[in-house]
Amino acid sequence: MEQTFTLQTIGYIEKNETESYIQLLPKYIEALEGVAGFSHLKAIYWLDGMDLPEMRDILQVASPYKKAPEILGVFATRAPVRPNLLAVSTVKIVTLDEAIGRIQIVSIDAENGSPLLDLKPYTPSEDRVEVPIVPEWSAHWPKNVESSEAFDWSKEFNF
Amino acid sequence: MEQTFTLQTIGYIEKNETESYIQLLPKYIEALEGVAGFSHLKAIYWLDGMDLPEMRDILQVASPYKKAPEILGVFATRAPVRPNLLAVSTVKIVTLDEAIGRIQIVSIDAENGSPLLDLKPYTPSEDRVEVPIVPEWSAHWPKNVESSEAFDWSKEFNF
Repeated sequence: MEQTFTLQTIGYIEKNETESYIQLLPKYIEALEGVAGFSHLKAIYWLDGMDLPEMRDILQVASPYKKAPEILGVFATRAPVRPNLLAVSTVKIVTLDEAIGRIQIVSIDAENGSPLLDLKPYTPSEDRVEVPIVPEWSAHWPKNVESSEAFDWSKEFNF
Repeated sequence: MEQTFTLQTIGYIEKNETESYIQLLPKYIEALEGVAGFSHLKAIYWLDGMDLPEMRDILQVASPYKKAPEILGVFATRAPVRPNLLAVSTVKIVTLDEAIGRIQIVSIDAENGSPLLDLKPYTPSEDRVEVPIVPEWSAHWPKNVESSEAFDWSKEFNF
């Protein structure tokens, strides 16, 4: 049985050339109580540029990665083409302004204006795998978020 | 500007007393191409038991954790009460049956029958924070998913 569910926008990703922010809508600001103290959050947002019925039916894509097999299922990638346009990014908090519901983050691989859907704390017991195994084609990628920023990703992607 | 988006069920979480599975609907099976080789996936599912308008308006909750402040915003917890009922679990693959779209996983903190929304590969460069900081009240929790299973969580939760 297929069912559908409805998501509501709780804020937006805001980016310019040098800075990235999570901006909550005013009614959701009180849900930040207790977020102070976490270094990282998981931001869940909607890949709204791909929200077309014909795009959501695409289940395999030409690999976005140079060293991967030519075709990958969307569940093996973070391609912004998938049945539900959910993106999950681990973001490092720079500053948290609880009064206006604005969080400056180090960076995020999102488009400016992407609708925000949820925030969750990054909890090592639930989110940090000590020894993850990945396919051969990505085994040389950085082993953590911290070292990912200095990595030359241009050699990995087909775009 | 608030917008709404529609999610479609792509499968279900199936659990019994000893085993946990992700079961895809037949039409989505081909999206598994290339998943073999990853030890862990992130499963995104819908907390459908809480999908009532009055529940989705609750933004602060009595803390589910014994040692935390009494009240926490839902963005500081994984409480199944939040504006959008999205849950993200990191799951370890036991077996992947690509023919029938069934993945046995070690365990998942979900209800049997929860609607599945997306699967993404666990990629260390995007998902594994080497040195996460958490609030004092959770600083003694396990430092990774592997050690979380043997931890006595009954001393941490208020239920």
